[in-house]
Amino acid sequence: MDLIDSAAIEAMEQRYRANFINSLSGYKSANLIGTCNQQQQTNLAIVSSVVHIGASPPLMGMIMRPHSVVRDTLGNIKQTGFYTINAMPVSMYAQGHQTSARYPSAISEFDACDFTTQWQPDFAAPFVAESPLKIGLQLAEIIPIALNNTELVIGHIQQVMVNPDAITDDGNVDISALQLAAISGLDTYHQVSPIAKMAYAKPDIAPAALKIFNADQ
Amino acid sequence: MDLIDSAAIEAMEQRYRANFINSLSGYKSANLIGTCNQQQQTNLAIVSSVVHIGASPPLMGMIMRPHSVVRDTLGNIKQTGFYTINAMPVSMYAQGHQTSARYPSAISEFDACDFTTQWQPDFAAPFVAESPLKIGLQLAEIIPIALNNTELVIGHIQQVMVNPDAITDDGNVDISALQLAAISGLDTYHQVSPIAKMAYAKPDIAPAALKIFNADQ
Repeated sequence: MDLIDSAAIEAMEQRYRANFINSLSGYKSANLIGTCNQQQQTNLAIVSSVVHIGASPPLMGMIMRPHSVVRDTLGNIKQTGFYTINAMPVSMYAQGHQTSARYPSAISEFDACDFTTQWQPDFAAPFVAESPLKIGLQLAEIIPIALNNTELVIGHIQQVMVNPDAITDDGNVDISALQLAAISGLDTYHQVSPIAKMAYAKPDIAPAALKIFNADQ
Repeated sequence: MDLIDSAAIEAMEQRYRANFINSLSGYKSANLIGTCNQQQQTNLAIVSSVVHIGASPPLMGMIMRPHSVVRDTLGNIKQTGFYTINAMPVSMYAQGHQTSARYPSAISEFDACDFTTQWQPDFAAPFVAESPLKIGLQLAEIIPIALNNTELVIGHIQQVMVNPDAITDDGNVDISALQLAAISGLDTYHQVSPIAKMAYAKPDIAPAALKIFNADQ
């Protein structure tokens, strides 16, 4: 193994370093963020930084760069206070990736990248009709990260749309059944298959699987 | 599709809701956090909330609950200012999951779960010798999330250890070559295989793959 130290990281060419550091956080979920402005101009952006914040109250977060390609997404969230997180299946990786292009604000990535808007009653942001797991959120707090001028955007989950058959007896959404994509780095898409569901771990008991999945599942 | 609204989420039994909400954020990376206190009592904890914060300066974050099973990890980070993020391969899922058990503070999960400490010169936290991607960080900032009393712990990357053969020409660490695990929910481990690496997206160009991976890779 090589040791790459601070000086070596700092000496990396900018794009090379962006790839290197982005890949260190491992596999990330692929989500499409649906928003609109007060004139109902819609926007869709792929984001790989969605993170669980807590279950009670039900909160999800994402890291956003105010002056990057997601500036419209962030601006819309601040304007309306609402947004959607739409899980992206593997089959949509090419059109989902295309939402990361710098389209002008007046062009909706829903149209340009061939996704369908789905509106719910009394909810001020568009869902992605094609997504098998759609989450509607109300903005709860934007926490500035002064270290690098990014923002942690936290939303309170208002509604979830999913096939009830995909919810297991213990409450988990079986995301492998939904064929969701994983992302590594900035540009690589992956398929995922389950290996094992583990029992709740206790100090005096050896680790045990509740279920082992077949390799071909 | 069923619509599950705020009232339905609130009415869920506590454990069921924890599973449901935790599974909504999709696939997450599996990382082992190595720490020690000022007496060099070591600790190891599996964490699925690591998130990329930025490449310049090189920053990684993770969401932590101060009063949960990771209280020792968080206490150690605050004491010493240093910690390690060690990517977890699929082959270690059972012993990695076992680090989530509530061991007493005096017992090291390195010993109890059969991982090997690796110390680097002038670095005050232990690495996991068995991990193929080891990251040493210095605590940069702890940002409190008042909404649910959690904390966003941000570290500045000080050193990275990885096989140089796993770094591609453009700087990406090929994490699929390292056979890293993905997690969904609180307890399910997955293997991952790449589908496609996409070209940088531009509005006037159709999405294009730089590389399509074979299904058996």
